[in-house]
Amino acid sequence: MMAPGRLEVYLDLLSQPCRAVQILLTRTGIPHKVCTVALRKGEHRTPEFTKLNPMQKVPVMVDNGFVLTESDAILKYLTTKPGVPEHWYPPQPDRRARVDEYAAWHHTNTRPHAAKVFLLEVLFPTQTGTPVDEARLQRALSELDGTLDKLESMFLRRQPFLCGDDITIADLLAVCELMQPLGGGRDILKNRPLLQRWKSRVQSAVGEAFDEAHSVLYALRDRRKAKL
Amino acid sequence: MMAPGRLEVYLDLLSQPCRAVQILLTRTGIPHKVCTVALRKGEHRTPEFTKLNPMQKVPVMVDNGFVLTESDAILKYLTTKPGVPEHWYPPQPDRRARVDEYAAWHHTNTRPHAAKVFLLEVLFPTQTGTPVDEARLQRALSELDGTLDKLESMFLRRQPFLCGDDITIADLLAVCELMQPLGGGRDILKNRPLLQRWKSRVQSAVGEAFDEAHSVLYALRDRRKAKL
Repeated sequence: MMAPGRLEVYLDLLSQPCRAVQILLTRTGIPHKVCTVALRKGEHRTPEFTKLNPMQKVPVMVDNGFVLTESDAILKYLTTKPGVPEHWYPPQPDRRARVDEYAAWHHTNTRPHAAKVFLLEVLFPTQTGTPVDEARLQRALSELDGTLDKLESMFLRRQPFLCGDDITIADLLAVCELMQPLGGGRDILKNRPLLQRWKSRVQSAVGEAFDEAHSVLYALRDRRKAKL
Repeated sequence: MMAPGRLEVYLDLLSQPCRAVQILLTRTGIPHKVCTVALRKGEHRTPEFTKLNPMQKVPVMVDNGFVLTESDAILKYLTTKPGVPEHWYPPQPDRRARVDEYAAWHHTNTRPHAAKVFLLEVLFPTQTGTPVDEARLQRALSELDGTLDKLESMFLRRQPFLCGDDITIADLLAVCELMQPLGGGRDILKNRPLLQRWKSRVQSAVGEAFDEAHSVLYALRDRRKAKL
């Protein structure tokens, strides 16, 4: 039987920010229950879910009646739970500011650019039954390249993780976005040794939680591969 | 003579997030120096400024050598300064989470939608010497309407400010965006009594800092009006 007031999260693991939330929860051992909201079945548009989040988006967190949306806010809130190591969202104003800085940048750079490649290569063609729009895909890949350049030359220039010497929620947000095109069989970090090494560090730091959260994405990749 | 290590901010007051930073600094009385970066003169692309912020964007804050970008991160960092009242960014996890939630939502809703109206109605026509693209403007206004609806029906439904009973940095981010179309003579809150009352509360809470920060926008509006 579930303890009353247990923290609940509403997730679809094909959604990048949902995976970031799932990884933090699993890695830090915060007691929680996952409620799956299958976006492809439109479960985010049911009356019940809409009542919970009128924006009809995942992730959503419910902590003893406190309903919270937006992955950014959820991740930061979760780091206030007892026993969560400080490095995830350091309390020192300057170190915390670096995480806030990346998170803000992320939502107008890494997120839209990596997501667009997946949308154009996987989601749109599947939903509409039409071939990939190669011209748009090339433009999206070129925009993504600019973002990957900045991740390397600015955020990772002099440090092992995006915001310093240890892993933070910023790395989770970033890695989950950069993994997404893999669902279409595309490894966008293939020719990016610096980002590859960073990704390996993130994987080592989160352990099994990484592959667990990405299992649905791996399965999508493998299904598409088998069809070729 | 300036005290060594005095906090500096690089701003253009025609930029919405810059005004939010300026209002918080003025209202809370944090000692600071404003360095103006005139975007229309391309001063954000000079070698000197690019060295400070390779992203070539404002606002930038420098606190005793610590360089920080992204308005979101700057505002949150500033609230850690001595003497800043807690209500700007409440320390309680649930109240703070509400501010983080709005800030995240803001950057993919209020900000792009209000900014687009200003771009289409003022910036593009001025820069290119071409008339306003009415079809695109109508689409942008309709998207903005959706955002204003959500601000009213969700964030302001049961509370005087966006994140609760008192003003927070979320209100500053929002009000500075919603003011922007006024530069083109357009009051987007005209038929929105709920948002108007909220705006009045924000103005009362920040006092003179509001009009000071918006003086450049008012001047733009008046210059354009005089030309008609």
